[in-house]
Amino acid sequence: MSDGLFFKPTAPMTVGEIVALTGAVPREGAHLEQVITNVAPLDRAGPSDLSFLGEAKYADLLRSTRAAACLTTARFENLAPKHLSVLRASDPYLAFVKVARKLFPDALRPASLFETVGVSPGAVVHPEARIEHGVTIDPGAIIGPRAAIGSGTVIAATAVIGPGVHIGRDCSIGPGATIVHALIGDGVIVHAGCRIGQDGFRFHSGRHGHTKVPQLGRVIIQDNVEIGAGTTIDRGGGADTVIGEGTKIDNLVQIGHHVSVGRNCIIVSQSGLSGAVVLGDNVVLGGQVGIADHLEIGEGAMIGAKSGVMSDVPPGEKWLGYPALPAREYLRSVAAQRKRTASSSKA
Amino acid sequence: MSDGLFFKPTAPMTVGEIVALTGAVPREGAHLEQVITNVAPLDRAGPSDLSFLGEAKYADLLRSTRAAACLTTARFENLAPKHLSVLRASDPYLAFVKVARKLFPDALRPASLFETVGVSPGAVVHPEARIEHGVTIDPGAIIGPRAAIGSGTVIAATAVIGPGVHIGRDCSIGPGATIVHALIGDGVIVHAGCRIGQDGFRFHSGRHGHTKVPQLGRVIIQDNVEIGAGTTIDRGGGADTVIGEGTKIDNLVQIGHHVSVGRNCIIVSQSGLSGAVVLGDNVVLGGQVGIADHLEIGEGAMIGAKSGVMSDVPPGEKWLGYPALPAREYLRSVAAQRKRTASSSKA
Amino acid sequence: MSDGLFFKPTAPMTVGEIVALTGAVPREGAHLEQVITNVAPLDRAGPSDLSFLGEAKYADLLRSTRAAACLTTARFENLAPKHLSVLRASDPYLAFVKVARKLFPDALRPASLFETVGVSPGAVVHPEARIEHGVTIDPGAIIGPRAAIGSGTVIAATAVIGPGVHIGRDCSIGPGATIVHALIGDGVIVHAGCRIGQDGFRFHSGRHGHTKVPQLGRVIIQDNVEIGAGTTIDRGGGADTVIGEGTKIDNLVQIGHHVSVGRNCIIVSQSGLSGAVVLGDNVVLGGQVGIADHLEIGEGAMIGAKSGVMSDVPPGEKWLGYPALPAREYLRSVAAQRKRTASSSKA
Repeated sequence: MSDGLFFKPTAPMTVGEIVALTGAVPREGAHLEQVITNVAPLDRAGPSDLSFLGEAKYADLLRSTRAAACLTTARFENLAPKHLSVLRASDPYLAFVKVARKLFPDALRPASLFETVGVSPGAVVHPEARIEHGVTIDPGAIIGPRAAIGSGTVIAATAVIGPGVHIGRDCSIGPGATIVHALIGDGVIVHAGCRIGQDGFRFHSGRHGHTKVPQLGRVIIQDNVEIGAGTTIDRGGGADTVIGEGTKIDNLVQIGHHVSVGRNCIIVSQSGLSGAVVLGDNVVLGGQVGIADHLEIGEGAMIGAKSGVMSDVPPGEKWLGYPALPAREYLRSVAAQRKRTASSSKA
Repeated sequence: MSDGLFFKPTAPMTVGEIVALTGAVPREGAHLEQVITNVAPLDRAGPSDLSFLGEAKYADLLRSTRAAACLTTARFENLAPKHLSVLRASDPYLAFVKVARKLFPDALRPASLFETVGVSPGAVVHPEARIEHGVTIDPGAIIGPRAAIGSGTVIAATAVIGPGVHIGRDCSIGPGATIVHALIGDGVIVHAGCRIGQDGFRFHSGRHGHTKVPQLGRVIIQDNVEIGAGTTIDRGGGADTVIGEGTKIDNLVQIGHHVSVGRNCIIVSQSGLSGAVVLGDNVVLGGQVGIADHLEIGEGAMIGAKSGVMSDVPPGEKWLGYPALPAREYLRSVAAQRKRTASSSKA
Repeated sequence: MSDGLFFKPTAPMTVGEIVALTGAVPREGAHLEQVITNVAPLDRAGPSDLSFLGEAKYADLLRSTRAAACLTTARFENLAPKHLSVLRASDPYLAFVKVARKLFPDALRPASLFETVGVSPGAVVHPEARIEHGVTIDPGAIIGPRAAIGSGTVIAATAVIGPGVHIGRDCSIGPGATIVHALIGDGVIVHAGCRIGQDGFRFHSGRHGHTKVPQLGRVIIQDNVEIGAGTTIDRGGGADTVIGEGTKIDNLVQIGHHVSVGRNCIIVSQSGLSGAVVLGDNVVLGGQVGIADHLEIGEGAMIGAKSGVMSDVPPGEKWLGYPALPAREYLRSVAAQRKRTASSSKA
């Protein structure tokens, strides 16, 4: 739901247009000409808002909602009050997201914080940087020599783009982010304060302390990746660090040197991937997961929150725990231990 | 203890003034006219310093201290050398803190890093921003259109305030912090590099990857909240993310979309609150705690460091462990397990 | 391996010069006059690259490498094809690192992101700052009053140096880093977005909430320390926070007020040290470790990744687990528990 302060719908839609966009089926009596200007949860929706109901536990809210229209499944349809325009969809939430994306295109990626276009007077762009037409650079942003930035990309205030960095088209680089030694594709979102491309943590340790190993690789970020605020991605030493197409990374994640992340992975906040870890495609890591160096997590594997992974994980498996095990095994182990404790304290 | 390089006492106090400020009772022979210019631990205090003693394990230091005056309880009073001005207080540490706050008002919240007042020439303030009289904005700070900043607030160097953000009075926004889509109360301290108001981590995942769900909510920070360096607070999607009055958050904490934190909570470093978590008032989270999404932690509950919380926690309870349990139960379980291991390895 | 985009070798070396630099012994037939321009892993090396082989598991790559020269031990020497210049060394990786450091001196510490020297026009330097000859300050950097910066130091774009901060010679301060209330030695590397010197997390908690305790101490960083991106180091309250000479700290680490870290320690990513923790010299902390306040970790101790340390650790010991125990004991406990679970589910 938008309060109108930060996001305004670009153009309202009628219920009929929502039907056309989503393929939802209107219940008899739905007001197809009704104008929708906002999206909202059932309990907060007002008379020009669209809402949705997907789960039984919220079904009661449907009876009392003030929303104008609601996307839901056949199962809940009859709970809705008569005045409500009910739109039947197989996946009401997906339909709802489609409408929200249409109503609020400004929320699809971060915009200029100065609401400007082109290169702002307060930005510092090196004369040897190559800035395509249609790039927006906010005040306080710094673009180094030979950096190349593609059309439609927004560089927010105080972001820093280092020498030779390539950024594709239609990207959003958040305020305070710093990017060095990196090649970045199209449609990439880098949120505030990300640190991309600094030295990996590699030393040769001997009697007289730790000698820095030169880190000569790069960070490669493929198309449509999103990277959360404060996340750090180190460049590789010998080989590159790579983040695959469509992967989404949450806030404060650490990705070490020479890590390779597959396509369409999900990495939740505060997880850490040690050096040379490999994630296959479609891997999901819960929050605060840690993965030891050089391990491989197979395609489609899911690792539960706060797990500490100390061995390879085969494709498609669900693992959990510290040290991590197949989830079923770990949960059985925890349950058995607690049962023993309970029975021994009764004895 | 201040070395005089970074903090200087604004005006020294006499022992008599300290008595008046704290309500402490001077021991017979205390030099009420003695001038105090600094505060220090017993073992590092010099002849114009105030110190304190609260715990028996530091009592020996009292015998040999070079401090001019010492706040302590009746219990330790007689251990003090004759020359020392002893001030009896029921809570010596609280009294000590009161004096430190009086001597060093500059340390109560971060100040301008350029030691300037008003809007610095090197700052970039959008013409449509509303800056009250008495605001300080350091060089390199960027203030977007329609941002509103209240009197007495300091915006440190390179901080970024996005369009439409409201910041109350007497706040300190640290260097490199970025604030978007947020409404911030009075007396709020945001330390260096905080990330407030960026998109929550929400996607609709399907066969063809992850579709971004527009995040239309805001972050609401109530009065007298303090937020540590590098902490990230995402804005809500449908509803707002809210941090309640007087809550203190440490460094590198992650707070997800639509989280609601109560009043006077303490959240220690590197903890993570997943989407839609609710903390009641006066909740304490130790360091590196993780809380799974949509859980509720009741008023006054305390969660031990590094716990992984996977269920609601009732008000007032102490929980610990991974997965977290009531602390007594968890500790019993750990002890029992280790006893079994010890006995089986002897067998 | 450098792709030439971000790092170029300053001057190529001959195999003979590599022999002289490293003390390696050339196999008969080695081409001492061969020119080496890059370093690379065995499987990616080309005909003017130096590679190395240290472990048996990569020995097969030696047979098929296209490298010009390879550092290895006597053990693997005979597996190398005839055309390859084999250089025998007792520690091939150390020798390889020496060559990489010689070929790519620009990779030994982060350089100006604007490839400039001296104080850049876009930087803001307070007239009372003391900048030695030979300092480089990038555009967007802000240097406060009485800050002192030594010769050879690079302050990257948008870094902020607060009032009175001292930074020694030949340091690199990364983009977006903020340093206040700190004294920093020579040869220190502070990566992007580090937060050094802000208030420690200390409050006096009472019935009416949490009262801030003034934090009057400093952060002391000794010579040749390296600090990873996004890491936060709070200043002390009464005494200073100290990081000892030669210590290396990874990304997103939290170091609380009044922590004392010894010399040549290694602290891996996302670890957290609570207030007043003491690490002896040569301590190693794995990733995501947490250490409770006021604990002491003895000289040379090693703490396994993701451990939660709740008691002092004696010098030289290896500890692991949550709660942490001596590693052998912890692993035995985990193994015993899992064995019991396995046998009870069979029963």
